[in-house]
Amino acid sequence: MAAAIRLSRRNLGLTATNPSVGTLIVADEGNSPVIVGRGVTARGGRPHAETEALAEAGERARGATAYVTLEPCAHHGRTPPCASALIAAGVGRVVGASTDPDPRVSGKGYAMLRAAGVEVVEAVLADRAGDVMAGYLMRSMKKRPEVILKLAVSSDGMIGRAGQGQVPITGPVARAQVHLMRAEADTVLIGIGTAIADDPELTCRLPGLEDRSPVRIVLDSGARLPVTSKLVAQAARVPVLVAACASAPEARRQALARAGVGLLATEEFDGAVALPELLEDLAAQGMSSVMVEGGANTAKGFLAERLVDRIVLFTGPEAIGAGGIAAPFDRDTLPEGFRVLRRARFGPDECIELVRTA
Amino acid sequence: MAAAIRLSRRNLGLTATNPSVGTLIVADEGNSPVIVGRGVTARGGRPHAETEALAEAGERARGATAYVTLEPCAHHGRTPPCASALIAAGVGRVVGASTDPDPRVSGKGYAMLRAAGVEVVEAVLADRAGDVMAGYLMRSMKKRPEVILKLAVSSDGMIGRAGQGQVPITGPVARAQVHLMRAEADTVLIGIGTAIADDPELTCRLPGLEDRSPVRIVLDSGARLPVTSKLVAQAARVPVLVAACASAPEARRQALARAGVGLLATEEFDGAVALPELLEDLAAQGMSSVMVEGGANTAKGFLAERLVDRIVLFTGPEAIGAGGIAAPFDRDTLPEGFRVLRRARFGPDECIELVRTA
Repeated sequence: MAAAIRLSRRNLGLTATNPSVGTLIVADEGNSPVIVGRGVTARGGRPHAETEALAEAGERARGATAYVTLEPCAHHGRTPPCASALIAAGVGRVVGASTDPDPRVSGKGYAMLRAAGVEVVEAVLADRAGDVMAGYLMRSMKKRPEVILKLAVSSDGMIGRAGQGQVPITGPVARAQVHLMRAEADTVLIGIGTAIADDPELTCRLPGLEDRSPVRIVLDSGARLPVTSKLVAQAARVPVLVAACASAPEARRQALARAGVGLLATEEFDGAVALPELLEDLAAQGMSSVMVEGGANTAKGFLAERLVDRIVLFTGPEAIGAGGIAAPFDRDTLPEGFRVLRRARFGPDECIELVRTA
Repeated sequence: MAAAIRLSRRNLGLTATNPSVGTLIVADEGNSPVIVGRGVTARGGRPHAETEALAEAGERARGATAYVTLEPCAHHGRTPPCASALIAAGVGRVVGASTDPDPRVSGKGYAMLRAAGVEVVEAVLADRAGDVMAGYLMRSMKKRPEVILKLAVSSDGMIGRAGQGQVPITGPVARAQVHLMRAEADTVLIGIGTAIADDPELTCRLPGLEDRSPVRIVLDSGARLPVTSKLVAQAARVPVLVAACASAPEARRQALARAGVGLLATEEFDGAVALPELLEDLAAQGMSSVMVEGGANTAKGFLAERLVDRIVLFTGPEAIGAGGIAAPFDRDTLPEGFRVLRRARFGPDECIELVRTA
């Protein structure tokens, strides 16, 4: 199952409204287990992982064990559901990790398999599989995307220096890690302050993953994003959405629309874009994850609304010193309501990944 | 209510995943009813119609009657739900048409109003209001978009002439009506045969409504859409999605992607794109309506799968004669399972609108 979960990660961020699922089919041939079929949900979300794995396994699937990171689907369209396909292929045993919260599947996939005489083992490494498809699970259950807050903090707890644009805090390995996070996210979001001060691209620029940049969103109540920004300049290649208040100047909205920027409709609260409503709409439009990349006010806004599900905190070895912009929380006293999921080191930089506990 | 329903139609096709709702607030001032507030769901779906109508009415909403085409929302984000806003404004009576099938609202909006002492009258002209927001209701309840089949048929029952590209069957008034239908739809869909034979644009070209063109979708199992087609040429301005099978040549897929075309992931059935799965995915991505514009095979495919909810049949006065392509059903014996909703005449052409009965 651990191998199936690693496989499932491969197409994270590429499978639209479907989860990125991994399937391995293992046959006992000559007294030793052999992987005879491998599948991961295809780009765009179809075909499903089981289809691919069964196609590779062919006749060798008969009597074999299928390891699936998510309960096989049970509802009919025109093509048979994956539970039927596993039965038809003669699979003897299905070992599953997560149960699918989609009401058209939930429990029904496993029930179909059992009714056909297939042995089913549920909930093996369910937490680890659920961690990979947290966006899908969040969108299915809470009707909003998973919100991942990425922060890079200096040794003295600063995220940048006022008026200096992008200040390097972490080294190249940590930055590559951030680009990988972008590749796995459906959308990346920043506030207008950061958009103006840093003029970032927010694309994934890892070799070979250049086509995996997420949709870029700017929280911009007054529609102030410059049409000369790098974000707008690349709007034709990687979509840019601006969440402006209805009260933003119409001329600015039109200038952005003409430059190829999408304008999100929003509700306004206290002069700013209402975040829960924004997330609800993004989920309704099929987006399962939002990676919040700054700045401090935007991070504080999501934290204050208790909308952050995961924090990935990078800490660099250098101090920013005078004129620093403080991080939204103290790096030594992590925010309440989170637990440490993993710790890593990327060259000189530390990384802590925190997930919400409740 | 009839006036509120007419108002609700205004932003149809513009309100993303929210329904286009109309609200009128009517006060009895000096013994005669006066409309003191008007609202329709804003572009993009927010703010809601009630917000706009209450803002216009101001203090005059106190004791007045609000006519709403859909049950006011009841769930909290950051901004108060519309049911609370109506209560806070002191509205005395709410007359509603449709009940919202969204489980976060269904019945709860009306219950909140009643609990606050507001008189509620439900289900007034519910069918007519539901007809305008059929796409929203279909997506909420069946997890697929409403499918509207548009057909233009000659007096001898043909939809065109083989090998001759677009053949004019109806006059300019009927054609303008088709463009209005496009403005109100989220997406318009054709088969690859029609895309190659007719090279259509599928945009809305009515003066003043040029920015209301729907997303254009081509059912194209082999990814054969020419990059030189008008559809692709305008892809940067109005999105084009191609539903190709996974087995389509990778070089063709890449050529389309480079030209700015979006590729939909699909399931394959019998060598063609599986339609129920395609519709499920479009709904998951926020699309509420699909207008099917041809050709005969594509229309037959949707009809055979019982996926057509509405047929808008235009009949022109001229005959096509020899070499004609027959319509997917006989114009005098309309397809089973539909009833006539309205009949109209546009210049020399007749129009019949049919809706599914079950």
